[in-house]
Amino acid sequence: MGEFSIGVDLGGTNLRAAAIDRDGKLIEKAATETNPEAGRDALLNEIVEFIRKLGSRVGAGQLAGVGIGVPGFIDMKRGFIVGSNNLPFFDNFPVRDEIQRRLGAPVVLENDANAAALGEKWIGAGKDVNDLVLLTLGTGIGGGIISEGRVLHGAVGMAGEVGHITVYPAGNPCGCGSFGCLEKYASATAVEAMAHLLHLGERATSEEVFKLAAGGDKLALMIWESVGRALGIALAALINIFNFPLYLLSGGMLPAWEFFAPPMEAEIQRRSFTYRHTSTSVAKATLANMAGLYGAAYLPFQAGHSD
Amino acid sequence: MGEFSIGVDLGGTNLRAAAIDRDGKLIEKAATETNPEAGRDALLNEIVEFIRKLGSRVGAGQLAGVGIGVPGFIDMKRGFIVGSNNLPFFDNFPVRDEIQRRLGAPVVLENDANAAALGEKWIGAGKDVNDLVLLTLGTGIGGGIISEGRVLHGAVGMAGEVGHITVYPAGNPCGCGSFGCLEKYASATAVEAMAHLLHLGERATSEEVFKLAAGGDKLALMIWESVGRALGIALAALINIFNFPLYLLSGGMLPAWEFFAPPMEAEIQRRSFTYRHTSTSVAKATLANMAGLYGAAYLPFQAGHSD
Repeated sequence: MGEFSIGVDLGGTNLRAAAIDRDGKLIEKAATETNPEAGRDALLNEIVEFIRKLGSRVGAGQLAGVGIGVPGFIDMKRGFIVGSNNLPFFDNFPVRDEIQRRLGAPVVLENDANAAALGEKWIGAGKDVNDLVLLTLGTGIGGGIISEGRVLHGAVGMAGEVGHITVYPAGNPCGCGSFGCLEKYASATAVEAMAHLLHLGERATSEEVFKLAAGGDKLALMIWESVGRALGIALAALINIFNFPLYLLSGGMLPAWEFFAPPMEAEIQRRSFTYRHTSTSVAKATLANMAGLYGAAYLPFQAGHSD
Repeated sequence: MGEFSIGVDLGGTNLRAAAIDRDGKLIEKAATETNPEAGRDALLNEIVEFIRKLGSRVGAGQLAGVGIGVPGFIDMKRGFIVGSNNLPFFDNFPVRDEIQRRLGAPVVLENDANAAALGEKWIGAGKDVNDLVLLTLGTGIGGGIISEGRVLHGAVGMAGEVGHITVYPAGNPCGCGSFGCLEKYASATAVEAMAHLLHLGERATSEEVFKLAAGGDKLALMIWESVGRALGIALAALINIFNFPLYLLSGGMLPAWEFFAPPMEAEIQRRSFTYRHTSTSVAKATLANMAGLYGAAYLPFQAGHSD
């Protein structure tokens, strides 16, 4: 077989990896739990051994490189992770170069939401376009922007912080210091907080709020209506700013699409003449939690053909 | 002398052009009024003759090409102007190719705000960066986005519509069909509307509202405070989205900077941790109404070195 690369998703306590060929075909994958409390050096060893083991299972192909998606900002030039709450001991440490040295293969780091956006662009819902924005709806809301086929990083890798776009200037306070951030209205955490305020069961999860809505519960439906409106306001801004052909949503809240999509669509229609006058699609991402692995695996291939 | 290019600013009733060398040095410039009522063919002739005449005054240099900034969306691939209120008879007409044919020189079309952003990047306030967003505060609010040194166009040239970012979801209705658009709070038109509502003189212009503020008028100061807050909300969103190093403001309202900049800065501080944690500058553009001419002139040079 030909060239392959390995995409890695490095979370706070879990580690996933996939060996993928140049056509985007999955060859091997693996997952494990890590023990970050063992410290930096032990974790680095764990990561390198895990990647090496997966690579050895691939067989005769040639390893083009390793892409690693991490929750945090990436200083692309230096290969540093900056401000990751989950991996604090990697702050201001040459993670990329150290893994590269131990592994003896080219390594590219990328923010996990950016990697997911790139994965969707490569072989997911965005495979027919070159420009897209992905919003990841989880406990918070992250984002990745793909412009002309590549991740838009900004000056220090912090581009795509769409969860902190203001949707209601005098709205709910956010941990970031602002008020009315998108993620205070459209993350799973926000859905759960609204459910709590409306006394929808004891600590209802966003999945339970979805089920309540599916059963016709009026308050649950109101929550998804609110989610949709907030998403619509933010998406309209993104559409007005980028005029990209595609905006994708991913994350555990997608099952509730039927409830939040109509008000979302109505807000976008109202707030973006670009949307009304061009062919612009707002759609579900399709790779689920594989998007980040595919995107990370694509990075070494892309680096080989970059400017 | 060496190579030069000609940048053109084509307004509804006026036509400006400048011959500029590769180092951004102005060689010659000219301005005239056009008569759009004479029809498409007559206007095309006027434009071509005007450019030719300016070129002939330059002397021995070689013309690299002509860049034309126009108020409207540009279909870059086809070289069409789409939806220009000021030049309706150019809609769905091959403007670029027709001027190119008559002139016998390469022609590039660009939206006027995009051209201004590119001009500022080339030799203005953005000459030390590769990525910036320019907001043009006029009767409306336009924008141009420069990413990795080039204009970000989006799918059909409509990127950068920052004037229609929602800042107050339940705010003033806008001609675009939305509510609470930035330009309903921070354009010259918005300043004049606020002055009217506050009975600040008969049809006070934004310049008069500036003078009133300079004289200590409390209501005029409130207006600039409101302008600054709206700009801050939109700029914080842009900063969170792009993580670019520079955001520029241009237009006739810049003299009031001292009044609107402090509340603008306070909103950005509050609403963007990217702003608080990175080196991000929000500043005045420096080329005033020459920015568009410089940017348009830069286009043929850039096309010659593009990917």
